[in-house]
Amino acid sequence: MQNSSDTVDNPGWLDAIRWNADGLVPAIAQDAESGDILMMAWMNRESLRLTAEEGHAIYWSRSRGKLWRKGETSGHQQVIKDIRLDCDEDVILLKVEQKGGIACHTGRRSCFYRTLKDGEWTSVEPVLKDPDAIYGSN
Amino acid sequence: MQNSSDTVDNPGWLDAIRWNADGLVPAIAQDAESGDILMMAWMNRESLRLTAEEGHAIYWSRSRGKLWRKGETSGHQQVIKDIRLDCDEDVILLKVEQKGGIACHTGRRSCFYRTLKDGEWTSVEPVLKDPDAIYGSN
Repeated sequence: MQNSSDTVDNPGWLDAIRWNADGLVPAIAQDAESGDILMMAWMNRESLRLTAEEGHAIYWSRSRGKLWRKGETSGHQQVIKDIRLDCDEDVILLKVEQKGGIACHTGRRSCFYRTLKDGEWTSVEPVLKDPDAIYGSN
Repeated sequence: MQNSSDTVDNPGWLDAIRWNADGLVPAIAQDAESGDILMMAWMNRESLRLTAEEGHAIYWSRSRGKLWRKGETSGHQQVIKDIRLDCDEDVILLKVEQKGGIACHTGRRSCFYRTLKDGEWTSVEPVLKDPDAIYGSN
C-alpha cells in the first residue's frame, strides 16, 4: 500500500510491517537460485529501507547495536532479487544472490549446517573457506 | 552434544539452543522437496521437543499463549524431514512435507505471498483453497 505521507527517507511500504517492541523484524535470506536457506538476521526500519534502495542486504546487528552491511569485510554480499512479506506482516524473506557462495561466518554456504541426528547436533555441511582467510587472522 | 543429564522430557540437545528472553526461538518451515519457504513461527522448549518426538511441527502461539499443533484444524500438518540449527544457535530450520500443499491460513501455499514492487506490497501467489472451506465458516 502506498501512503500519501511517503518520503524518500520514509516510504509508506515500511508502515505495513509490524515491527517488534525493539523496532526489529526477522529477515530470512534464501538463495534465489538453489532455494537454500542461508541465514536469518534482524532488520530495523533503516536497514530494510537501505536494503531496498541499495539492492544488497543490510541487517541490524543486535550485538553491536548498529547497521551490519553484510559482506563489507568478507566481500560476501547478498544481492537482492526479491523482498517478500508474510501474512502476519512480521517476517521478511529476501531472495538473494550470495556472492562468493558463502553466507556463514564459519566459511560454510549456509548458517544452518547442523542437523539433529540421534539426539545430537551434527555438522553436515563442509567449510568452503577458512574464516581466517575470509576475515583476516588479526 | 549429548548431556549426562538427558531425560526423556528434557533431552540435552535442547540445551544447545539459545532461547530468547521469552524462552522462544524462531522456526522457519521450508518445503523439503521444492525448497519453498512456507512460514516462520516460534517454538518454546516443549514445542520443539514434541516436534522432534511426534514428527510433525508443533509451534508456540504467542498470541494464544499455548502450543499450536499445526494442522490440527485444517489437516495441513507439516511432517518433519530434517531439523537444523544455525551457527548462532538461535534459529531453527524445519524441512517438512506440507500436507495439503497449503501452509498459510489465507489458503495460499506459502505465507510469503507478497512481494515489494514499485514501492507497494503486491500479492503474487494464488489462493488455492477458500479459508472458510479449510477452517469452517463459523
